[in-house]
Amino acid sequence: MDFGISEELASMLAGIRDFVETELYPLEGELLENGFRASIPKLHALRQRVKEEGWWLPHLAADHGGLGLSLAEFGMVSEVLGGSPVGHYVFNCQAPDAGNMEVLLEHATDHQREAFLEPLLAGEIRSCFGMTEPENAGSNPIFLSTRAVLDGDEWVLDGHKWFTSSADGASFCIVMAVTDPDAHKYQRASMIIVPTDTPGFELVRNIPVMGEAGEDYFSHAEIRLTDVRVPKENILGGEGAGFAVAQQRLGPGRIHHCMRWIGICERAFDMMCKRAVTRELSPGKPLGHKQFVQGWIAESRAEIDAARLMVLRVAWLIDQQGDYAARVDVSTIKFFVANVLQRVLDRAIQTHGALGITDDTVLSYWFRHERGARIYDGPDEVHKARLARKILEKYTD
Amino acid sequence: MDFGISEELASMLAGIRDFVETELYPLEGELLENGFRASIPKLHALRQRVKEEGWWLPHLAADHGGLGLSLAEFGMVSEVLGGSPVGHYVFNCQAPDAGNMEVLLEHATDHQREAFLEPLLAGEIRSCFGMTEPENAGSNPIFLSTRAVLDGDEWVLDGHKWFTSSADGASFCIVMAVTDPDAHKYQRASMIIVPTDTPGFELVRNIPVMGEAGEDYFSHAEIRLTDVRVPKENILGGEGAGFAVAQQRLGPGRIHHCMRWIGICERAFDMMCKRAVTRELSPGKPLGHKQFVQGWIAESRAEIDAARLMVLRVAWLIDQQGDYAARVDVSTIKFFVANVLQRVLDRAIQTHGALGITDDTVLSYWFRHERGARIYDGPDEVHKARLARKILEKYTD
Amino acid sequence: MDFGISEELASMLAGIRDFVETELYPLEGELLENGFRASIPKLHALRQRVKEEGWWLPHLAADHGGLGLSLAEFGMVSEVLGGSPVGHYVFNCQAPDAGNMEVLLEHATDHQREAFLEPLLAGEIRSCFGMTEPENAGSNPIFLSTRAVLDGDEWVLDGHKWFTSSADGASFCIVMAVTDPDAHKYQRASMIIVPTDTPGFELVRNIPVMGEAGEDYFSHAEIRLTDVRVPKENILGGEGAGFAVAQQRLGPGRIHHCMRWIGICERAFDMMCKRAVTRELSPGKPLGHKQFVQGWIAESRAEIDAARLMVLRVAWLIDQQGDYAARVDVSTIKFFVANVLQRVLDRAIQTHGALGITDDTVLSYWFRHERGARIYDGPDEVHKARLARKILEKYTD
Amino acid sequence: MDFGISEELASMLAGIRDFVETELYPLEGELLENGFRASIPKLHALRQRVKEEGWWLPHLAADHGGLGLSLAEFGMVSEVLGGSPVGHYVFNCQAPDAGNMEVLLEHATDHQREAFLEPLLAGEIRSCFGMTEPENAGSNPIFLSTRAVLDGDEWVLDGHKWFTSSADGASFCIVMAVTDPDAHKYQRASMIIVPTDTPGFELVRNIPVMGEAGEDYFSHAEIRLTDVRVPKENILGGEGAGFAVAQQRLGPGRIHHCMRWIGICERAFDMMCKRAVTRELSPGKPLGHKQFVQGWIAESRAEIDAARLMVLRVAWLIDQQGDYAARVDVSTIKFFVANVLQRVLDRAIQTHGALGITDDTVLSYWFRHERGARIYDGPDEVHKARLARKILEKYTD
Repeated sequence: MDFGISEELASMLAGIRDFVETELYPLEGELLENGFRASIPKLHALRQRVKEEGWWLPHLAADHGGLGLSLAEFGMVSEVLGGSPVGHYVFNCQAPDAGNMEVLLEHATDHQREAFLEPLLAGEIRSCFGMTEPENAGSNPIFLSTRAVLDGDEWVLDGHKWFTSSADGASFCIVMAVTDPDAHKYQRASMIIVPTDTPGFELVRNIPVMGEAGEDYFSHAEIRLTDVRVPKENILGGEGAGFAVAQQRLGPGRIHHCMRWIGICERAFDMMCKRAVTRELSPGKPLGHKQFVQGWIAESRAEIDAARLMVLRVAWLIDQQGDYAARVDVSTIKFFVANVLQRVLDRAIQTHGALGITDDTVLSYWFRHERGARIYDGPDEVHKARLARKILEKYTD
Repeated sequence: MDFGISEELASMLAGIRDFVETELYPLEGELLENGFRASIPKLHALRQRVKEEGWWLPHLAADHGGLGLSLAEFGMVSEVLGGSPVGHYVFNCQAPDAGNMEVLLEHATDHQREAFLEPLLAGEIRSCFGMTEPENAGSNPIFLSTRAVLDGDEWVLDGHKWFTSSADGASFCIVMAVTDPDAHKYQRASMIIVPTDTPGFELVRNIPVMGEAGEDYFSHAEIRLTDVRVPKENILGGEGAGFAVAQQRLGPGRIHHCMRWIGICERAFDMMCKRAVTRELSPGKPLGHKQFVQGWIAESRAEIDAARLMVLRVAWLIDQQGDYAARVDVSTIKFFVANVLQRVLDRAIQTHGALGITDDTVLSYWFRHERGARIYDGPDEVHKARLARKILEKYTD
Repeated sequence: MDFGISEELASMLAGIRDFVETELYPLEGELLENGFRASIPKLHALRQRVKEEGWWLPHLAADHGGLGLSLAEFGMVSEVLGGSPVGHYVFNCQAPDAGNMEVLLEHATDHQREAFLEPLLAGEIRSCFGMTEPENAGSNPIFLSTRAVLDGDEWVLDGHKWFTSSADGASFCIVMAVTDPDAHKYQRASMIIVPTDTPGFELVRNIPVMGEAGEDYFSHAEIRLTDVRVPKENILGGEGAGFAVAQQRLGPGRIHHCMRWIGICERAFDMMCKRAVTRELSPGKPLGHKQFVQGWIAESRAEIDAARLMVLRVAWLIDQQGDYAARVDVSTIKFFVANVLQRVLDRAIQTHGALGITDDTVLSYWFRHERGARIYDGPDEVHKARLARKILEKYTD
Repeated sequence: MDFGISEELASMLAGIRDFVETELYPLEGELLENGFRASIPKLHALRQRVKEEGWWLPHLAADHGGLGLSLAEFGMVSEVLGGSPVGHYVFNCQAPDAGNMEVLLEHATDHQREAFLEPLLAGEIRSCFGMTEPENAGSNPIFLSTRAVLDGDEWVLDGHKWFTSSADGASFCIVMAVTDPDAHKYQRASMIIVPTDTPGFELVRNIPVMGEAGEDYFSHAEIRLTDVRVPKENILGGEGAGFAVAQQRLGPGRIHHCMRWIGICERAFDMMCKRAVTRELSPGKPLGHKQFVQGWIAESRAEIDAARLMVLRVAWLIDQQGDYAARVDVSTIKFFVANVLQRVLDRAIQTHGALGITDDTVLSYWFRHERGARIYDGPDEVHKARLARKILEKYTD
């Protein structure tokens, strides 16, 4: 058992941390005030810097142009990037593109690789992933209404999706659709790549979420597919393989999310501590002298440390033994870390008083937009029930 | 001990509830989407309806044009109004006007009565209350930087306020300012009425709070006062009486807030239950069959009931014995109910899944804007410490 | 709505409180150290005092020799008695006798009245109630294994009970037994009175609970019934009426328990406050200056007040409209108050530090023995699920 | 970063686990029923087995007759031993002897080594540690009333201690006493070895804790020292070194405790799961089908895993960099793990229903006796405040 990291990794993390703090934190004000699109030029200049530093695509293997890190190592990078709402974007490892890249790397045909994957890796385009449907409980993914029917050489898609994150501005969408309603429940669906300029692919709206519809990368779309036709070869991973492929996306995806949340936690924690030593209740009596505040700091420190160790252990397990070995553990960290995140943000806000609920700090942005952390990718309750059932199975064998 | 209410009151509450559900709930979509100002014409028409029904100014005595309810009875009205974000506004008992009315009724000179109170009671104007300052911890109100100096027949005010709620569109502001820095700490400040069109009274911005700056009644302003001159007679309640008068505002004000929060809780609870019986996880299996959801419903029911009884008892105590007798109890209900509110909203959102974090329901609005409930009017921690110290005093006498 | 009480009641409560504090608190040391039996002579002398004061049987109607209080009024008495582990006993309104008295008053034949009820009312004997069985989940009472078969003029009982509280020293047991296994599930069982000296009625052991088996009134027995024969007329309330009669026992019974728990809470709260002002962390710095302790005091104060109002409202509802109207509300208060109790005791112990876990105070006794409060009479989970289902029923009608 | 362990360690842990489950679990019934002393012969036979297996003194270096494990490795052993209330005892690594051994190994003179340490290592005697005093808040150890005055060649001790764990049956006590009241606050106290048969060393009582006074190793004594005389050379670690030496004891001691608690958690978790699959609410419907129970299992799994990683990381840090580097982290794990322990035990009891509060399982023993975990070795609040202050120091430098 060794909780240390190599000097090389430590040095890279320090470099990235410095870059994030120096270059990305100062962008927050304008990002939150003017929206994502206005900042794109600056962000692309920063992406160039990241490429020059050799940090581009930190989640991918070296032979795909990435940094060749283990999942645990990338997790530590992801934590640092999580300190900024655009950290992952600037390093081109943002959701949902990161997951789409992984799926394409594994399953893309030569054509798909050239048309979709390569520009994605280069950061020339963005993509999205169309899974969730408003009419069906996301917690039970086998209930999908979107259909894809083969008509000659084309798939014809009809359906209704929402929470298709970052669809606004994306070039293509990987759509989960039922291709064989009569198959076994886990073999009904397939993934089909749909360019977003295909006729019938309609971005109904960016859904207003917690007070803002957002735009571009900072958005979640409602999508309607009406008689959308794409070439037969746009299927990804084979007919009926939709769930199997989606499953692969999940393990590393949850590590990414969880480590990003821990990055948010650390940032909020840092802000809470700074506030505690600078805000005075009366001259010479900073907030941090109060035990209530001390309690929040201590509990947050403990919970964040616990969360990080939990996630890194699961990342290490995936590195050692693959996704399947860790399929239950990813449920555990999903709900555990999402709840730590909510508590830490809540305490950081309370420490800031009235300032905490304004948009003058980034805390309110996260408080609002990460409330979803306990819902998306499966609500806490689904993960808890799943974990418990898996544990109890061992007792009934 | 009698937990019942008169048939007359029950009948009025039923009438108001019906009005709120029928007339106000349907306005929510456009209010949240288009902002407050666009809805003003509709709201004023509804105010007319309220006057016709005889429900105008439900918080005031009959001889001031109000309903002549006890504080406990008004509390029950306030709960019903709280189900809509504009309930109190439509009945002209919204904060901060309600508190300003009470202060003016008690302390206004004839001139002040005519110039400020009467149009307020008539619903022709709105007002605001300038107390909190960004540079000073609100939890310790004796630290105020705003100064008012008498220069001949005029008060000259200089200072910086924020979270001056609903200042945008208000006709006047009751400003808390230090008039005698050398007096005893509770006698330094006075309340001065400042018309918002006075030169030097600058509305710097509507502070973006949890993602929206809002506008008009739905806003919290940052205010700068620079060499603002108002007539000497604009002082309210006498020099040095600022804290004493503010204190009077607080008791009933907290009852209003707490009952409004309970109204929000009941609305969220109702939405949670409706979701539980209509959202199906699989055909014929509604969400409400799940124990996790049952747990939220049961705990919310218990906590809301407890919160209501707590507040009504304190309202009754004020009715019987006055503010002073209940000065500790208003601290108790402040933190107790604000926390029930946050938990109930959180559970209602979780029950709604992805829909819960969208602005397609009113839950997200409250989740964001009522996060402040644990901060404004004194954060939880100040109220808890105060309550405990008062209790322990009795043990050391 | 009126949260006040009559001067007469206030005066009686003050008298009882004084008696409990002066006479019963000082007995705690020896009770906890030497067991219940050694104190019986003193307790019986105190019972005599209670009779002389006119406080005997405070839960019963005046025509049954009681005080003729409403349930809400008795609730307030029960709270005061709850401050001592023997308060209810000394006033002869202790569980399970109080419930047995109520059932007998309602259903006893003349013979039963004379043989069982009258000595119970006089305080000459004690009784017990045999319901729970180790082999069957108590949360689903329709599963009972104990059988009673009519053989001529006698019921022949066979079965296995546990948590038959206070069976040690009791003169008779009201046994819940299946008399018709083929009846509708709620009509299978009957209540049968079994004198504890009947052959085959075996007190297997006083179950060691949280470290002590206890004795007499302070005990919970395991009982085995083997071919136990009692006269046919010992049936109580009619064949198949077991559940219906048990149900009647529950409503008032839960009020009694809940108010007793609140009495424990107030006692623990008082001890916590006394400790906070007397224990010094360093000279002149009492524990109560610490915000952590202030937080516990404030939260406990709020929760206890809430709990009391909740219970009194339900008691009032039963007084006004009967048990059936309050059948859901008794579930609500059961889990709500039991959890407040556990939290308050936990905080009181933590405030006492090492002393808190010793038996030098009564806190450890309650911490141990009231852990069961969240389990007996239906665990929290059963009450929450039941409450939620009842609420949701209204949404599906 | 490597979360794996060597095959050698895994194999030893499996062996020890098997031994603990097979040999120690079955002793619980009689231990809890008959007390510790009655089981000593059996326990000593088992100690012999442990020596034969080569597992004796698992916490010590090989050259002191121990297993030569790192602290992290011993932590894993300690977890396994924690599954039984006598696990550590049988392996001779029980508190407070383990800490006393470490202190003696570091500081003992030749005489002390021979007279006290060697028989301790051999398991021939037991010892205790007299620090806490009833009159002084343990959370602020500089306030000690026990005095030791040099009189010729002898220390003369006078004082009053309590919670001197396992003093009953111990051969000597390491007593913390003030030797120079005028020194700097951290240099006032010294450790002095006092054989328990020294005149004036009086074991006043085994303190009844949570319902039992216990005996021998299972006890906490109140001690009075009256004119107790021991040779001058019985001082341990030098005059005024009491706190410095005590501090050394703490780091590893907290690892031991925390890992023992995790062992208890795992045992309780295992019992909870077994109960969940075997207890039926109705035929074919085990408790584990209920989401409430699933929630407890999932949350417990997450929290125990988090706790273990937290502690092992701190153990590893001490192994790598020594106690001082980890002095803040040991505060973190102390309160974090103690609270996980309390929650897991509480859930395990609730899952067992009425059985859970009986002494028919070991759960009630731990629920009672580990309530102290949040108090001894510094209450949660002291550790939280300390951690927060240390963190905030870095922000004010």
